[in-house]
Amino acid sequence: MSHSLTPSPTAGYAPEDEEEDSSLDYFYDEPGTLPGTLDLEPDDPAPEIVLIDYNLAKATRVKLDQPQDFLPYLTAQTVSWLDIQGLGNTETWRQMSQIFQFHPLALEDVVNVPQRPKVVYYENPDQIVIVAWMVLLKPDSRTLHREQVSLILGENYLITVQEEPQYDCLEAVRDRIRNNQGSIRKHGADYLAYAILDAIIDGFFPVLEHYTDRLEELEDEVLFKPSNHTLWQIYEVKQELLVLRRAIWSQRDAINILVRDRTRLISKRVRVYLRDCYDHTINIRDMLETNRELSSDLINIYMSTMGNKMNEIMKILTVISTIFIPLTFIAGVYGMNFNPEASPWNMPELNWYWGYPVCLAVMLAIGVSLFVFFWKRGWFEDFSELKQKK
Amino acid sequence: MSHSLTPSPTAGYAPEDEEEDSSLDYFYDEPGTLPGTLDLEPDDPAPEIVLIDYNLAKATRVKLDQPQDFLPYLTAQTVSWLDIQGLGNTETWRQMSQIFQFHPLALEDVVNVPQRPKVVYYENPDQIVIVAWMVLLKPDSRTLHREQVSLILGENYLITVQEEPQYDCLEAVRDRIRNNQGSIRKHGADYLAYAILDAIIDGFFPVLEHYTDRLEELEDEVLFKPSNHTLWQIYEVKQELLVLRRAIWSQRDAINILVRDRTRLISKRVRVYLRDCYDHTINIRDMLETNRELSSDLINIYMSTMGNKMNEIMKILTVISTIFIPLTFIAGVYGMNFNPEASPWNMPELNWYWGYPVCLAVMLAIGVSLFVFFWKRGWFEDFSELKQKK
Amino acid sequence: MSHSLTPSPTAGYAPEDEEEDSSLDYFYDEPGTLPGTLDLEPDDPAPEIVLIDYNLAKATRVKLDQPQDFLPYLTAQTVSWLDIQGLGNTETWRQMSQIFQFHPLALEDVVNVPQRPKVVYYENPDQIVIVAWMVLLKPDSRTLHREQVSLILGENYLITVQEEPQYDCLEAVRDRIRNNQGSIRKHGADYLAYAILDAIIDGFFPVLEHYTDRLEELEDEVLFKPSNHTLWQIYEVKQELLVLRRAIWSQRDAINILVRDRTRLISKRVRVYLRDCYDHTINIRDMLETNRELSSDLINIYMSTMGNKMNEIMKILTVISTIFIPLTFIAGVYGMNFNPEASPWNMPELNWYWGYPVCLAVMLAIGVSLFVFFWKRGWFEDFSELKQKK
Amino acid sequence: MSHSLTPSPTAGYAPEDEEEDSSLDYFYDEPGTLPGTLDLEPDDPAPEIVLIDYNLAKATRVKLDQPQDFLPYLTAQTVSWLDIQGLGNTETWRQMSQIFQFHPLALEDVVNVPQRPKVVYYENPDQIVIVAWMVLLKPDSRTLHREQVSLILGENYLITVQEEPQYDCLEAVRDRIRNNQGSIRKHGADYLAYAILDAIIDGFFPVLEHYTDRLEELEDEVLFKPSNHTLWQIYEVKQELLVLRRAIWSQRDAINILVRDRTRLISKRVRVYLRDCYDHTINIRDMLETNRELSSDLINIYMSTMGNKMNEIMKILTVISTIFIPLTFIAGVYGMNFNPEASPWNMPELNWYWGYPVCLAVMLAIGVSLFVFFWKRGWFEDFSELKQKK
Amino acid sequence: MSHSLTPSPTAGYAPEDEEEDSSLDYFYDEPGTLPGTLDLEPDDPAPEIVLIDYNLAKATRVKLDQPQDFLPYLTAQTVSWLDIQGLGNTETWRQMSQIFQFHPLALEDVVNVPQRPKVVYYENPDQIVIVAWMVLLKPDSRTLHREQVSLILGENYLITVQEEPQYDCLEAVRDRIRNNQGSIRKHGADYLAYAILDAIIDGFFPVLEHYTDRLEELEDEVLFKPSNHTLWQIYEVKQELLVLRRAIWSQRDAINILVRDRTRLISKRVRVYLRDCYDHTINIRDMLETNRELSSDLINIYMSTMGNKMNEIMKILTVISTIFIPLTFIAGVYGMNFNPEASPWNMPELNWYWGYPVCLAVMLAIGVSLFVFFWKRGWFEDFSELKQKK
Repeated sequence: MSHSLTPSPTAGYAPEDEEEDSSLDYFYDEPGTLPGTLDLEPDDPAPEIVLIDYNLAKATRVKLDQPQDFLPYLTAQTVSWLDIQGLGNTETWRQMSQIFQFHPLALEDVVNVPQRPKVVYYENPDQIVIVAWMVLLKPDSRTLHREQVSLILGENYLITVQEEPQYDCLEAVRDRIRNNQGSIRKHGADYLAYAILDAIIDGFFPVLEHYTDRLEELEDEVLFKPSNHTLWQIYEVKQELLVLRRAIWSQRDAINILVRDRTRLISKRVRVYLRDCYDHTINIRDMLETNRELSSDLINIYMSTMGNKMNEIMKILTVISTIFIPLTFIAGVYGMNFNPEASPWNMPELNWYWGYPVCLAVMLAIGVSLFVFFWKRGWFEDFSELKQKK
Repeated sequence: MSHSLTPSPTAGYAPEDEEEDSSLDYFYDEPGTLPGTLDLEPDDPAPEIVLIDYNLAKATRVKLDQPQDFLPYLTAQTVSWLDIQGLGNTETWRQMSQIFQFHPLALEDVVNVPQRPKVVYYENPDQIVIVAWMVLLKPDSRTLHREQVSLILGENYLITVQEEPQYDCLEAVRDRIRNNQGSIRKHGADYLAYAILDAIIDGFFPVLEHYTDRLEELEDEVLFKPSNHTLWQIYEVKQELLVLRRAIWSQRDAINILVRDRTRLISKRVRVYLRDCYDHTINIRDMLETNRELSSDLINIYMSTMGNKMNEIMKILTVISTIFIPLTFIAGVYGMNFNPEASPWNMPELNWYWGYPVCLAVMLAIGVSLFVFFWKRGWFEDFSELKQKK
Repeated sequence: MSHSLTPSPTAGYAPEDEEEDSSLDYFYDEPGTLPGTLDLEPDDPAPEIVLIDYNLAKATRVKLDQPQDFLPYLTAQTVSWLDIQGLGNTETWRQMSQIFQFHPLALEDVVNVPQRPKVVYYENPDQIVIVAWMVLLKPDSRTLHREQVSLILGENYLITVQEEPQYDCLEAVRDRIRNNQGSIRKHGADYLAYAILDAIIDGFFPVLEHYTDRLEELEDEVLFKPSNHTLWQIYEVKQELLVLRRAIWSQRDAINILVRDRTRLISKRVRVYLRDCYDHTINIRDMLETNRELSSDLINIYMSTMGNKMNEIMKILTVISTIFIPLTFIAGVYGMNFNPEASPWNMPELNWYWGYPVCLAVMLAIGVSLFVFFWKRGWFEDFSELKQKK
Repeated sequence: MSHSLTPSPTAGYAPEDEEEDSSLDYFYDEPGTLPGTLDLEPDDPAPEIVLIDYNLAKATRVKLDQPQDFLPYLTAQTVSWLDIQGLGNTETWRQMSQIFQFHPLALEDVVNVPQRPKVVYYENPDQIVIVAWMVLLKPDSRTLHREQVSLILGENYLITVQEEPQYDCLEAVRDRIRNNQGSIRKHGADYLAYAILDAIIDGFFPVLEHYTDRLEELEDEVLFKPSNHTLWQIYEVKQELLVLRRAIWSQRDAINILVRDRTRLISKRVRVYLRDCYDHTINIRDMLETNRELSSDLINIYMSTMGNKMNEIMKILTVISTIFIPLTFIAGVYGMNFNPEASPWNMPELNWYWGYPVCLAVMLAIGVSLFVFFWKRGWFEDFSELKQKK
Repeated sequence: MSHSLTPSPTAGYAPEDEEEDSSLDYFYDEPGTLPGTLDLEPDDPAPEIVLIDYNLAKATRVKLDQPQDFLPYLTAQTVSWLDIQGLGNTETWRQMSQIFQFHPLALEDVVNVPQRPKVVYYENPDQIVIVAWMVLLKPDSRTLHREQVSLILGENYLITVQEEPQYDCLEAVRDRIRNNQGSIRKHGADYLAYAILDAIIDGFFPVLEHYTDRLEELEDEVLFKPSNHTLWQIYEVKQELLVLRRAIWSQRDAINILVRDRTRLISKRVRVYLRDCYDHTINIRDMLETNRELSSDLINIYMSTMGNKMNEIMKILTVISTIFIPLTFIAGVYGMNFNPEASPWNMPELNWYWGYPVCLAVMLAIGVSLFVFFWKRGWFEDFSELKQKK
């Protein structure tokens, strides 16, 4: 997600331990940058370019050293998938532009990541640039990984560009082409674009399930052991759901444009499939909204639980104070040193035969009646209920 | 609602005690699954297929052993209702596809449950797939049961697929056909689809009434015996209303599409009936919204009741403490051991003739005036009001 | 509002003391009911049917014993208003259907009350069914009464059906026809429908004023004498405003349809009047929204007032405790029984000449300085302010 | 704003001290009133009618005694502005109707004030009725004054009706005509209508500024001296902003209709000016929304400030109680009267040589360590911060 | 931002230390002002006018002393950019109007700043007035600076007007023209307008990043050291985000109009670039919304943290009070002065051999069991957790 990331050439890529930034910060140029400027250096590592060239009869997979190697395949009566891993360097894209004649703004959307998911049509030559966001849980840390996957759909070819080679969700599509599964090799580049979008969209579901599970854990925590830490975690989940939500709304709009607009590059038959894909984005949106409502409710419940705890604490204090304060007062009275000898009215109780027992009895009576008073108001129900819960 | 449920063949089905999951989790493929893949095994039990074939003159009801048995009925000048209980296995749907030539995505929506309620049109052959959600309260446990009912409407035939055979809301429609009630046998398959949708929609009303009753009970609980448990129950109801709301909004949109779109498969006469059905979904939506607002209000009232309780607790503590703390101080003063003999200024009160009675009188005066102070501020009104309530 | 209400035949109707249900529960069929089924019994009492037949020249008012008696008037060149009080029985509507050839769904909306306000067009014969809600304050109890008024507008005739005969808001319209006031007798049945709708809509204003007054009373209560009871009452008002709001939104939509749609049954001239009627529904909506915001604000003010009360209570407790606790401690110290004779260091103060007065002076100094401390922080301003308020 | 207000005939009008009602109550008829009924009495005072008749060459200003006096001006090739102050009586409007042939509903909107701002087109003759709301701060009391200004725009004439003569915002327009400033005398009646609407709209800005200032004052009050009274004032401002907001939204819609609709009465050239006027209503709306958000935020800050105060109060109580309660306990222990002579175990400390000093030292140690405990938790930072603030 | 600001003529401009007003107050005329009145004085300083005149072959930069000096360039086959710094005086605009024939309302939008961002088309001559808002962080104080940049796009010329000369974001555009970078000199005035708008929009990103950083700092503050001051700062940030949001929404709408409307002045090729610019405004909007949600969440977290603190304070008070109050009572009992000699029942404990030790043991037992009681309820977990945090 960082802007100056260095894609690994082929293998042995050591995943960086950098902290994933889950906030929604799109790429932006320094103000005053020329339109079409790519955020790349000439000496950035070259990307890994794999060409998958197929028709119903056969499928070839070639690793290209440089974009020009693609030229022989360009005229063939096959669908060509240029599968590019890593954002490459300025040289890569200079060569690509020569071959495919990209509009300068098209490349900007592909290279200056992250961009908001969108669909842009270009003419002369006809090309559709589709910016999509792929999400997955990293296998080791179970944290969210987001990266941009850009698709450039042209006549008979599709170019896909992924930010980071080590995370990928298109292996299933490659397998389908190799093994001729389903109808993928019967269709053109438009169906391939659909298949890739479908794989990306379907990748949201396991991530969503992960968050649903997290929220259920947090629900238990709120119920049995709420702390300020719980609250922070709920907010964290809420923030990440917010980012996913933004992503899926834009993605939904983008796919809707593909379904709706009549363009020569996407056939009517494939549009039926894209509509299904569109339905999936709506399902994801629904699930996200439900989870967001749940997280908001959890925050309210947490607040209310805190309020109940306070009530409970105050009850304990009130019961103890209210019972003992009057008793202590009585004890204080008979601890006064008025001189009984100076007057018969000065604390004659001290010399009564039953003075002390009566005094204790009175104290007991007061204590018990206050206790009963609180009991009747149901204050002790909470305590027993609480003990039970623990 | 679980994905690998085992439909009972014919009878003696023991309802599972599995916990119903009330959260809104749509079905989703593993990322990378082929489009059109059905979530079934070849050895899943075959579904129960009943054919109801009728026109104005006669109505037949046949239990089919396998889909091919339907072939003789296909050409007849009758409306054929293929009433399928259970999701079946891969073999079932392979045969069905041969007969009805389904689009691969159509079957996905029918079999990979649950899907969001929707309407999808297919061509060659003309078919309308309607995904609807049926809700009911289980007779024994009075808990909510949701399941998907899928309708595939074609020329002269209607196929309905229900997830779980033991819960059903279409018996009334079957009776109407058998007994030739109303005008059902005068119309075609489109009216049958309407009749089934109407039965499904009407099934929401008793469920809604159940939740209205629950909320009224909870209102009483908040008023007379609020606890944290009450709050959790309100949230539970709120969550379930949220799920119902999502369901009914999608269902409303789906039916609106049927009312609005001019399609050859639905006659103008039946569209009038569907409009009525659409009106019912709006009524349900209104009732749901009202209930949701009520549940939100209940939460606020709960919070406020808790705040009032706290006020009450603090009042008790304050009254008792404030009255007795000054008195205890006075008692403390006269409990000091300054030696009266060392000086005439050292606590001469102790030897006064009226010392003790005057001291008690002063205490009484202080206590009474504090009591009056609180009384005048109206602090005791709450107590009496409260006692009354209990 | 109850479904099985028994309309009085002619006179001496004793208003039931049943509790009005202010929640928004629309009528619904048992799931599986035939479309067009009326919620009536054959032996329900017959409704009171009055025919008002008029043109510019003359106006007749006839009480019909049964619907068939209307037949002679059907062909006449007059506007016929069939004013039906009470929902009648199955026989009534069988006869009516024979005369007016209702669509089965049309009767359902009229008889199975309450329905959401709406407008439905039918063809063959052309009829417009308008469902409206009339509200009024019962003269005796000042509680809200809602009932459905259904209008069926046809060529030259208008049928109105009211649920409960004892509440009515159309007397002014009848008077206008009888006395030939305004232009009512110059227009057709469409103007009559407008006049009735206008009377119904105008009936909302006094009800709204009633709730505005209630809210003002509650505002005073929150300010001067807030209790949990106040809160409940605000919620009650809020709920009822919610119901009214739903009603007026639907009614607004319904009338908008009448204004907008070009239908043969409503002339352009009358449409100008309906637009005015539509404006009134918007005014009502605005006033309702304002009242709803007010009620929400009141709840917040209530909450804040409770918080202030708590602050006040805690201040009293804190002032008293904080002043006296240190003093009591000092008194406690000099109440200790260390033996002054065992050592010159054991409480020599007790034998000092000025011991006791100095001790009291120290206490006074501490008490006063704490008092001044609180005074300076402005804690006593609240008290004086409060006393003033009471 | 009251319905039966008595407009002053010409001069010496004593402004009533009636309380302005800031709630949003539109005018409404008694249910059952005839459409077009005016809320006037025959003997209400006649309004002040001033005719300003102008073209590029000359401008006349005549005070008319009665509407008929306008007749000679009607045919002239000038723009005639009938500037009516006060709502007049039934006779006034009977004469007006004869001259201008108003639709009955048109007069209702003009006379039965207040109406929601709106635009209504009438035909035969072509007339546009524009209902606008003028707001201003009363010069003396700085309270909000609202009144309806109605414009009836016809071919070559414009009629304006104001409720209350003593408040007026059109003097600048009159001056412009008299002094031939700007291009007003080069245009027709449509430009005059624009000029008046513009003056009315611009009148909102000073009012808004007034509320912005009020909110800033209240912000200071919340920060330095929050009381329940502050809260009520914020709510009051919020209520009034709500009323202004409703007014400006309706006004915006009304002017948008004028800009958008192609009507013969408003020329294209004037429409450009109206678009500018429309922009101003959007600016006002933006400023209102900002102020409303500010007031909502202020309420939240107030709540939080109250919570902080409570925290502070509780800290004082807790510090004092927690330090002194254990000390008082120790003092209590050595105040017990166990007889040291009865046993060597009975309170031997009392006879120790260092008993009393050691006891005091222990107390001091406990007190100091508790104080340090609270100090380290940062409890005293608040106090110092607070003292500083005061 | 102030209305009567005095732009510096050429150099040595000393930035005023006036306080930036971050609230959203648009410019407004005194009510009754003539439309088209400029808020300038005849003796306001003249603005700095620089003409940049270029085509693909050459680019000239001339400083003009007065607008008339532009006349020789008007007819040339070049793109003329009149770059005006400062709002000028009435004379400036009188001359400008002579040359460019502005509509009076056009100048009002340019000179009477601030106006809401918008796009207005004028005809005869064709001109597009674009009002945009430029934001930047002042280099020294890092506070937000906002100013209006107005663009008037005509045939072959573009006029830009900036409020304050010392802040500028167009230097990069000037450099591009001078150095012939990118394709700017290949296009016409429409591309220049795009380039300037793009520079303005891109200027929002660093400002947004600044606020994101501020919010992260505040998040830390809420977590580790929350005070009422923190809350005020969050509200401050929220207010400023609100202003930015309003600005960007209007700007987005304005640019959308340019993208969508077919106007002769903007070529199709440039429209593709404007669409990209439009995408940037959407990105900014998304980031703003995310930040606003974050600030709202922070406020909630702050509130909850305060509640937790209160719980903690109350726990301390309750533990100490509840443990010591019963012990103090016991000490009080044995401090009573009942005379043991008057009766064997009067406090015989005082003379017991083990009286004092037993009494102490009982106290210890009570204290320990209460301590254990609180321990078991987990009350001390908070304390340790807290200590750790500090």
